[in-house]
Amino acid sequence: MQVVRDAAALAAAVSSWRATGERVAVVPTMGYLHEGHLALVARARELAPRVIATIFVNPTQFAPHEDLGRYPRDEAGDIAKLEAAGCDLLFAPSVEVMYPPGFATRIAMGGPAEGLEGTHRPQMFSGVALVCSRLFGLTRADVAVFGEKDWQQVMVVRRAVEDLALPIAIETVPTVRAADGLALSSRNAYLDPEARAKAVAMHAALLHAAERLKAGATAAEACGEAEAQLRAAGFRQVDYVALRRAADFAETERLDGPGRLLGAAWLGQVRLIDNLPVG
Amino acid sequence: MQVVRDAAALAAAVSSWRATGERVAVVPTMGYLHEGHLALVARARELAPRVIATIFVNPTQFAPHEDLGRYPRDEAGDIAKLEAAGCDLLFAPSVEVMYPPGFATRIAMGGPAEGLEGTHRPQMFSGVALVCSRLFGLTRADVAVFGEKDWQQVMVVRRAVEDLALPIAIETVPTVRAADGLALSSRNAYLDPEARAKAVAMHAALLHAAERLKAGATAAEACGEAEAQLRAAGFRQVDYVALRRAADFAETERLDGPGRLLGAAWLGQVRLIDNLPVG
Repeated sequence: MQVVRDAAALAAAVSSWRATGERVAVVPTMGYLHEGHLALVARARELAPRVIATIFVNPTQFAPHEDLGRYPRDEAGDIAKLEAAGCDLLFAPSVEVMYPPGFATRIAMGGPAEGLEGTHRPQMFSGVALVCSRLFGLTRADVAVFGEKDWQQVMVVRRAVEDLALPIAIETVPTVRAADGLALSSRNAYLDPEARAKAVAMHAALLHAAERLKAGATAAEACGEAEAQLRAAGFRQVDYVALRRAADFAETERLDGPGRLLGAAWLGQVRLIDNLPVG
Repeated sequence: MQVVRDAAALAAAVSSWRATGERVAVVPTMGYLHEGHLALVARARELAPRVIATIFVNPTQFAPHEDLGRYPRDEAGDIAKLEAAGCDLLFAPSVEVMYPPGFATRIAMGGPAEGLEGTHRPQMFSGVALVCSRLFGLTRADVAVFGEKDWQQVMVVRRAVEDLALPIAIETVPTVRAADGLALSSRNAYLDPEARAKAVAMHAALLHAAERLKAGATAAEACGEAEAQLRAAGFRQVDYVALRRAADFAETERLDGPGRLLGAAWLGQVRLIDNLPVG
């Protein structure tokens, strides 16, 4: 597996593939890879003969008080995992490569970026749209693969790609979970054993809300019960449990077609998010 | 020449060209075409076997008090001119095609978008970057051709293309002028005969400033004299006459390499802009 850190080396590698007509898939990540990321790489390998993974902890999607500085990193481990997964190239740029001197473009996302994560992390999705747009351009990939764990992010990236008519398809892979149901996340590394034991309540609460919605409960009822479950399980703060329509991410008071249940809550200083398809 | 108004028909035409390996050049315009636009089409024909012109009076680059509603339009005349110029396809979308329901992306430009036009028309360049990015994506063009008449716009579009790593090259064509030196502009249609006679003072003032800079004057001196000339010629308000470095659009107090002199001023209710290379 090639490891490249600058745009010129990336362009050279991609050009050599494109010259022979090979399609390219990209898996954008922030590193500290787990089985969820590797499922994205596996899906990418099905979609294209050439697979690029990117590792970049993107400062433009973190607020000043967030965990940019302590975000977990293990590049040597990541490289070994990607190599074993059959990735062709790792693009691991510095901040200066992604945002070189003179960089002057920002993207502001509305629509699916509004509410939920957009309320609690106001600058995140604009940062995500910017870094993804630039990564899509630099990699010249035909398809990008994202995890459904970050469902709202997927909706935002799809929106940006459609609005800017970027020449890339977006594919998703269902969330990979631990045996007890906890969605895999790099941020799970922040959980101490006690918190890790409590964390499964997020998945359980969303499953409960899904059952209640299917039984005819309103979103307010179902999500309210899930929030109560989270607090009872030891989550100190629930940012939201919410139902959205799957197609357009619109709010809805009842399950009126394919929907998505999303939750975000704090275990001590660790913020967990998860979501489920419903209906 | 095909005239297409929706994204699907455009994509179909471009796909048929790309299938045979033909390169595509695009000339983005707001219509009401003059010889300056046709020079862009001619340059596009040199750059690619397939040429698309676009006509779209982009609402996101006009402020509420500006001339969006009265911007001159003549689609039938434009079609005849483009056909005669050898354009292959005109893309003339509605606002709903460019910004369909659910559209949720905005671009905010700093850097070369700051100062000069960016000061006097604060939302223009973000609107330009957005519409150009989307047009570049929809047309899948290899190269876009812009006129140097809108020099700051060219700097902004180049910046956005580089920052978002959009797969398109930007080419420019020198400003086309009337016999007396007035830069051709669709907005010249607003000038009555008396104002038209005075308008040449813009080019003359920039030429004077260029000579003074080459003779060693500071930017403040040279531009100040040009502003005085404009007022003496009957311009009621001078928004700016300014010197910038050609390479990075940075301000500079003296001619210290290739530069660009830019001016904007009002003749009655008509705002004219122009610029010149210097040094």
